[in-house]
Amino acid sequence: MTSVLVEPAERGQRPVFDTVLVANRGEIALRVVRSCQEMGIRTVVVYSTADSRSAAVLAADEAVRIGPAAPRQSYLYAPPIIEAARATGAQAVHPGYGFLSEDPDFAEICARNGLVFIGPEPSAMRQLGDKSTARKIMTDAGLPVLPGTIDPVGNVGDLVNAANKIGLPLIIKAAAGGGGNGMAVVRDWADLVPKFRSTRSVARSVFGDERVYIERYLENTRHIEVQILADQHGNVVALGERDCSVQRRHQKLIEESPAARISPEIVDRLRELAVLGAREVGYTGAGTFEFLVQGEEIAFIEVNSRIQVEHPVTEMLTGVDLVREQVLIAAGRELSLRQQDVRSNGAAIECRVNAEDPDNGFVPRPGELLEFLPPGGPGIRVDTSAYAGWRIPAEYDSLVAKVIAWAPDRERALARMNRALREFRISGERVRTTRDALRAIIADPVFQEARHTTSFLEPQGP
Amino acid sequence: MTSVLVEPAERGQRPVFDTVLVANRGEIALRVVRSCQEMGIRTVVVYSTADSRSAAVLAADEAVRIGPAAPRQSYLYAPPIIEAARATGAQAVHPGYGFLSEDPDFAEICARNGLVFIGPEPSAMRQLGDKSTARKIMTDAGLPVLPGTIDPVGNVGDLVNAANKIGLPLIIKAAAGGGGNGMAVVRDWADLVPKFRSTRSVARSVFGDERVYIERYLENTRHIEVQILADQHGNVVALGERDCSVQRRHQKLIEESPAARISPEIVDRLRELAVLGAREVGYTGAGTFEFLVQGEEIAFIEVNSRIQVEHPVTEMLTGVDLVREQVLIAAGRELSLRQQDVRSNGAAIECRVNAEDPDNGFVPRPGELLEFLPPGGPGIRVDTSAYAGWRIPAEYDSLVAKVIAWAPDRERALARMNRALREFRISGERVRTTRDALRAIIADPVFQEARHTTSFLEPQGP
Repeated sequence: MTSVLVEPAERGQRPVFDTVLVANRGEIALRVVRSCQEMGIRTVVVYSTADSRSAAVLAADEAVRIGPAAPRQSYLYAPPIIEAARATGAQAVHPGYGFLSEDPDFAEICARNGLVFIGPEPSAMRQLGDKSTARKIMTDAGLPVLPGTIDPVGNVGDLVNAANKIGLPLIIKAAAGGGGNGMAVVRDWADLVPKFRSTRSVARSVFGDERVYIERYLENTRHIEVQILADQHGNVVALGERDCSVQRRHQKLIEESPAARISPEIVDRLRELAVLGAREVGYTGAGTFEFLVQGEEIAFIEVNSRIQVEHPVTEMLTGVDLVREQVLIAAGRELSLRQQDVRSNGAAIECRVNAEDPDNGFVPRPGELLEFLPPGGPGIRVDTSAYAGWRIPAEYDSLVAKVIAWAPDRERALARMNRALREFRISGERVRTTRDALRAIIADPVFQEARHTTSFLEPQGP
Repeated sequence: MTSVLVEPAERGQRPVFDTVLVANRGEIALRVVRSCQEMGIRTVVVYSTADSRSAAVLAADEAVRIGPAAPRQSYLYAPPIIEAARATGAQAVHPGYGFLSEDPDFAEICARNGLVFIGPEPSAMRQLGDKSTARKIMTDAGLPVLPGTIDPVGNVGDLVNAANKIGLPLIIKAAAGGGGNGMAVVRDWADLVPKFRSTRSVARSVFGDERVYIERYLENTRHIEVQILADQHGNVVALGERDCSVQRRHQKLIEESPAARISPEIVDRLRELAVLGAREVGYTGAGTFEFLVQGEEIAFIEVNSRIQVEHPVTEMLTGVDLVREQVLIAAGRELSLRQQDVRSNGAAIECRVNAEDPDNGFVPRPGELLEFLPPGGPGIRVDTSAYAGWRIPAEYDSLVAKVIAWAPDRERALARMNRALREFRISGERVRTTRDALRAIIADPVFQEARHTTSFLEPQGP
């Protein structure tokens, strides 16, 4: 019967690319494969030896092994990825999130090899990737930023001078940082210099760039971000906000939209600022502007120039397939969606189920999954590349599955999420997960009443 | 950490029932468990020995074994179900679909035992369950019906007389029939009496009621149905239509909404007729009015007085949780949704993945599932109670999973469904499925252009 099959995707239209290579792993690689296949695009997934049986590899039209498990020899190493694209006839590369996704050098290498990099222009990535530079540009564009240093702090003398002006608490951040790494909060003058040195040291080893800057640290804020899409023809739309205030060590655990208890005026203002900022740097593709909100006060923090882990929250509310839009934008298409066409319906929340031990400082606890029955039913979406029998590799991020719940309102979305997490059967040898810890947060009256802030899980700070 | 857990469902409100017993199996049992748990209701699932490890049993708060695999000794046998409800303190019984769901005697047994039956009143079920009576009532209410006998045909003399008036082709239907069973199309006078006898014989053995009636058979029609909700306070809303024209032996394989290439005027008319018919019999709960449509001609065929297999299609479009509404209606609540509040967004399609051999007359091919990776990602919902390692019992319906795809429009919903079916990894010892046959239908230009009718898969009829 398979002989009669034709791909009905985009019937009567040629796909925008014949073949797209996915330079990532795990759930986001599968996520990209899904959108591409729906567009009639052939997909190539690259994989390390640790991922040879991942669901992304199984779902892809073709899979190419690029190296051993160590990221520096596989997902972070451009040459075999470029070679795989060449060998499989790919015209474009989707970098997912993490790994090479925000590396302007990789985007340039793609371009030099005749490959479309599905992401912003390297120049925009470069400006936004350096957090000091991004702060400066956005300040010039009129976005409010927290008091802090514009240029990186090069020595202890400059540090103490700047810190005196800013006051405590303050935060030291790696200019090249991201994903919650390379940050330290200083609440005591005695910690200033030691934390400066340790953050520089971390920044040097993790990002290969020791530059750090400092800014005022706001306690008890909400982390609110705005999803934008921008095409190559000057059109920018803001698709809505996400509240990502539930964090542990600056890493998001739970994200939701709408942002509960944030006034519509503040949300509108954030959307306007995100569009303004995107225009300022000539941004193209999908991106996220991150802000801190405290009462009526707003402060821009950074831009993530890639698809984000929490993008499904916005997809559930708007019906927009963000990965599809990324591909169309990279192919030069004009956005089909205008600001006035953006519709948002109901409430959505995402929980990141990680293979970690909540009773033991959330240390990673990977291993082979013996039982894996993700939840389903109305309003539930699960993005995962795991399955029963799959061995979660120890070499990568501990994310196992994203559970997203949609409902007509927040109260029902939380009830649905609680049901879904409870239904989720996940166990394995040595494996522990954050499932029950997430349920406890969802059931916490502080979260239920949306009185949580970024300090919710860490009242004493990091 | 589990000690701090409280059920956040319906925060601050008492659930409408403390405990609901689910008198069904498979995906629909799990479906009911999900909505109840989200409402803060404790769930009890009854099961036969063949289902002791089903996902519904695993997800329920409590599970009670009621008998051996044979349906007549378990899911079709009221006494142990009533006993389980009593023993577990259930206040209400949800019957799912099939089995006892449309049995007014079971509804009365529930009532006599102080249990709320989550479905219509027995009187309405009785009127609608007998298809001859339903035809008569709906004719009186002003619904168009096909020419045919009002009363059941008792003997060959009456049969021949009636058939002469109606003409060929005609269809013989068991008055107590349902789910595609107990029907025969007559195209040749020579087949009339033999098919009459065989249909009566099937009706007697399957439904315990040999009464049959006959009506004109329309070739090349579309099967369009309307989902309604009606409360105990006289409010009735029509939630939208579903096109279920893709059938094999009168069993639906694929359902979608909106009904492509059916004019808005026809759809509006069907909705009005469904509301009219529901009011006529004092219908309460969720129900479906089924119609045949050929050009501008409409004919009422029957009412399904239960939740249907294809209900997720409507849930994806409207955001309404139909099972939740059933529970609220049974508890006496007024519908919170008025006709003018019903919103429908995008397009949705459902494919029923059955454990059958498409190359061999679709005979059931149950067995143990060795690999089972349902698809996921944006716009995909999978309702199933199967998982890797689960043995599909041979005693029941061959449905293994329902895959539902939503997208902003039909073209993208079909592309998404094709991707999802392709991604679906399902295999086992002896197991064969309809997955690829469904993909072939989705990819068929006749279906893609919505030129299909109920004869699409069986041009020569049954």
